[in-house]
Amino acid sequence: MGEFELIDRFFRRPARHQPLGIGDDCAILAPRPGMQLAVSTDLLLEGRHFLSTVAPARLGHKALAVNLSDLAACGARPIAFTLALALPQSDEAWLEAFARGLLALADEHGCELVGGDTTRGPLAVCITVFGEVPAGQALLRSGAQPGDEVWASGTLGQARLALEAFRGRVLLPAELFDTARRRMEVPTPRVALGQGLRGVATAAIDLSDGLMGDLGHVLTQSRVGARLHVDELLGLLPGAEALPEAQRLECVLGGGDDYELLFTAPAAQHALVLERAAGAGTPVRCIGRIEAEPGLRLVDGQGRPVAARFASFDHFA
Amino acid sequence: MGEFELIDRFFRRPARHQPLGIGDDCAILAPRPGMQLAVSTDLLLEGRHFLSTVAPARLGHKALAVNLSDLAACGARPIAFTLALALPQSDEAWLEAFARGLLALADEHGCELVGGDTTRGPLAVCITVFGEVPAGQALLRSGAQPGDEVWASGTLGQARLALEAFRGRVLLPAELFDTARRRMEVPTPRVALGQGLRGVATAAIDLSDGLMGDLGHVLTQSRVGARLHVDELLGLLPGAEALPEAQRLECVLGGGDDYELLFTAPAAQHALVLERAAGAGTPVRCIGRIEAEPGLRLVDGQGRPVAARFASFDHFA
Repeated sequence: MGEFELIDRFFRRPARHQPLGIGDDCAILAPRPGMQLAVSTDLLLEGRHFLSTVAPARLGHKALAVNLSDLAACGARPIAFTLALALPQSDEAWLEAFARGLLALADEHGCELVGGDTTRGPLAVCITVFGEVPAGQALLRSGAQPGDEVWASGTLGQARLALEAFRGRVLLPAELFDTARRRMEVPTPRVALGQGLRGVATAAIDLSDGLMGDLGHVLTQSRVGARLHVDELLGLLPGAEALPEAQRLECVLGGGDDYELLFTAPAAQHALVLERAAGAGTPVRCIGRIEAEPGLRLVDGQGRPVAARFASFDHFA
Repeated sequence: MGEFELIDRFFRRPARHQPLGIGDDCAILAPRPGMQLAVSTDLLLEGRHFLSTVAPARLGHKALAVNLSDLAACGARPIAFTLALALPQSDEAWLEAFARGLLALADEHGCELVGGDTTRGPLAVCITVFGEVPAGQALLRSGAQPGDEVWASGTLGQARLALEAFRGRVLLPAELFDTARRRMEVPTPRVALGQGLRGVATAAIDLSDGLMGDLGHVLTQSRVGARLHVDELLGLLPGAEALPEAQRLECVLGGGDDYELLFTAPAAQHALVLERAAGAGTPVRCIGRIEAEPGLRLVDGQGRPVAARFASFDHFA
């Protein structure tokens, strides 16, 4: 099977909403009037971003999900993506499953595959995703204000728990392992929540490298600090209460690979945040406050400091 | 040096023409009113798309050049690009040179680096490039008409000659080898020519996989055939007259990696094509005609058929 036949069989579908899709030198996108284009790119490599044991349909899902998560963090509506794929061989069963997982998530979000590139090489997936956002309304990392509440969506730390289990460093009950593995392999990008937070959130970021590091980006770019409540953080990792608290806290704060949203909003908008989250069908939890004083402080239920140091994930550290 | 420091040191520059560049979950692009966005992505792997001997500054140039060439083929004006980079280690000298070559070409075309991703892994470069084109004016592969003239820009076959020389299959005079190697490692994307051909060319494609295969895409998508003149084809590879004609013809027709433009235009626009090419500072040569009969025919100076069979480059063939 040649390169062009491979594209035709597994990836080519007519562009429905954009002027030109796969099959020419470029794709052509036509953002609607008044819209800006949000763009994000992620490169996933076998052994680094995913295990060789992952089912190809799940890999297809995840490769797009991590990019959609970036659009969500900006409040953008997905419209299209390109796919550059390096494959050790053109394995039809693998490609069929990969394309199925990828395109199912794409269809769920109305995000069209408009172009790409295929080549032979060590397994690598590079997706660039495009979303529309009304001009000037993109959610940025830089807008958090002292007094804002800090929120996180969904659950955190499960992908890290699954990874630790795969590495044999922790033994999980079967049910928790299944949940955690599914979270690691099939993350849910919070696309509807991101759009719902436009005009409400003051800052947002997607949690890909771990809460501690990712919140750090928001704090640095907003020139503020934050106080987080340990009890609320632990509440983000349900079903793992049998594990030591320090281990659970490490998974929540330093885990990474969660693809939830972390965002800030004025305390006066607390009810509106809950309303928008309910409208998006995504649970959210208020985990602390933005403060003028730089740095990150963890406190217990009585407001007493809790010591914790966790490194964010850094591919070159 | 960590991932974020690496980005800061070598790649982060303020976005001048787009609303938001490197440093958030997404970049934000704002195409001007009436403009559509042309998008192309290419994944380059060491050992497949470039030799390990290539100087990193040249690799930086080429990685962007092959993408700008796709924009040129659509008649789009480059505005921005994203860079996903996998590196075996964070080698400062390598990164400095790579970034220098990359950003010099980007600056030459006013194409801003707005985002990306870096990770550790086998050397791979995935660039996605964005260009503006007036709505409905993109040059496509599908518009060639019987009677149109077939044109090629610049020179063809030199990259293939250099590759053959590197592989020890041909011995080239020093001057020709230097020229050919430079064409392979530092291709010139025909960006100004592509924009100049809007409203004149009926179809266009960039020559990345070899003239034979790439013209084949135009013929298939336009549902036409073509007759090419061997003498004109040989004229696209100057300075190699000492080599056998069959070898030169093979380099021109099947070589690939040239990043010239192949395009068609009505015969009545012959003078206008030459005028637009002169305006862009790019030589062009009329190499044949589009015909209603499907297929590709090579003819000599007396219009007699010349037999030739050359495969286009296909990564999975």
